[in-house]
Amino acid sequence: MKIDVVTLFPEMFDGPLGHSIVSRAIDKGIVEVNRVNFRQFGKGKHQVVDDTPYGGGAGMLLKPEPLFDAMESIEERSPETKKRVILMDPAGKPFNQAMAEDFSEEEHLVFLCGHYEGYDERIRSLVTDEVSLGDYVLTGGELAAMVMIDASVRLLPNVLGNAASAQTDSHSSGLLEHPHYTRPAEYKGMGVPDVLMSGNHAKIDEWRHKESLKRTYFRRPDMLESRDLTKQEQQWIKEFQLDQESDQ
Amino acid sequence: MKIDVVTLFPEMFDGPLGHSIVSRAIDKGIVEVNRVNFRQFGKGKHQVVDDTPYGGGAGMLLKPEPLFDAMESIEERSPETKKRVILMDPAGKPFNQAMAEDFSEEEHLVFLCGHYEGYDERIRSLVTDEVSLGDYVLTGGELAAMVMIDASVRLLPNVLGNAASAQTDSHSSGLLEHPHYTRPAEYKGMGVPDVLMSGNHAKIDEWRHKESLKRTYFRRPDMLESRDLTKQEQQWIKEFQLDQESDQ
Repeated sequence: MKIDVVTLFPEMFDGPLGHSIVSRAIDKGIVEVNRVNFRQFGKGKHQVVDDTPYGGGAGMLLKPEPLFDAMESIEERSPETKKRVILMDPAGKPFNQAMAEDFSEEEHLVFLCGHYEGYDERIRSLVTDEVSLGDYVLTGGELAAMVMIDASVRLLPNVLGNAASAQTDSHSSGLLEHPHYTRPAEYKGMGVPDVLMSGNHAKIDEWRHKESLKRTYFRRPDMLESRDLTKQEQQWIKEFQLDQESDQ
Repeated sequence: MKIDVVTLFPEMFDGPLGHSIVSRAIDKGIVEVNRVNFRQFGKGKHQVVDDTPYGGGAGMLLKPEPLFDAMESIEERSPETKKRVILMDPAGKPFNQAMAEDFSEEEHLVFLCGHYEGYDERIRSLVTDEVSLGDYVLTGGELAAMVMIDASVRLLPNVLGNAASAQTDSHSSGLLEHPHYTRPAEYKGMGVPDVLMSGNHAKIDEWRHKESLKRTYFRRPDMLESRDLTKQEQQWIKEFQLDQESDQ
């Protein structure tokens, strides 16, 4: 997979691209990440990339030309690839796991990172997807791009050491993860559930499934709305409800 | 504000803490960010921080002791502060702007970043908040912590250059942002709405308000559910609905 990140702050990516699962994927040749600083396409001696808004108001906007020129430079370098061009935008579609899976199947992802107070509306004509990381405001699109790259690249074959891991995660199975325990068996007065020490694997699987469902039921009931609950799961949910009532 | 990040990958933060609005806030002395590598509290010559799960299964879990010891070292260094201890966890409460505002009013934030396949359940007893960045899976908590730090620190007084900017953002006003335009007036066949060139500020404000509402109505109607719509806004929404019907 090819990834281009179009940004004014390419150095921000040094750490995340250099010390992480993504850096391992780069070393293995599974993914190639290029950073394009669109400052180089700025106007004049000072390489200006922003200007005041038409109609007045506070702040500076990113001008269209440097971003169009940056996109053209990527097209010239990789004319053969089909590109998915993703604009980091608080007004975009909220990023989620399905989108990460979708991105992980692409040949070439291009992330456009805005910064400053906003950008010229016409920049949207360059993009295939406008995506928001969540309902919060960041100082720029760089961190959002790093998150989307991480979530997508970890799904590529041979990136995670343990192939099983990607499948049992929260959000992949449709349930939150059950609690995990490792040694010591007793720590600061806190123990480990007996069932996990029992060696009875059927019982352990059952306990884990039930605890996943319980955590999801109490913390993120919205995640259960689209789930086809098994008979066993329906019965467990009745138990949770009864326990909850008797607690009140 | 003091921030501690407890992580196995402190180098991942070099870029984001060194080249961003957060780095400016650090230079100005508005925020102090420490990174604590809990590897130093690992066991034995190899400073082991993980172990296999009780009950079997794939993957390694973070052991409780190194994280408890890391928290103790922070408590010893800053005994006087009231700490908000935030665990990056896909099963946590989804991060949002209200939470960023809440965090920005704290004296001392501590972010615990998990990694690997999970962590011992007892680590949760250290924390005040379990927070998820969104419904997607990341390779670790580091990027999530960077995002939360960025979203919180930018709200501190004197961090953003332009005080007005933080208030007119998407999500802060309860509406998505209206389109912005800057020079040139004509670019690749795309113009700028006439009203923005009119110099009539009442008309410009009205256009911007209406476009914000329109974008929110079509892209994120959920954001309008909790809004007290003005009469003008209700009338505009009727217009959007009529336009939509006549398009079909």
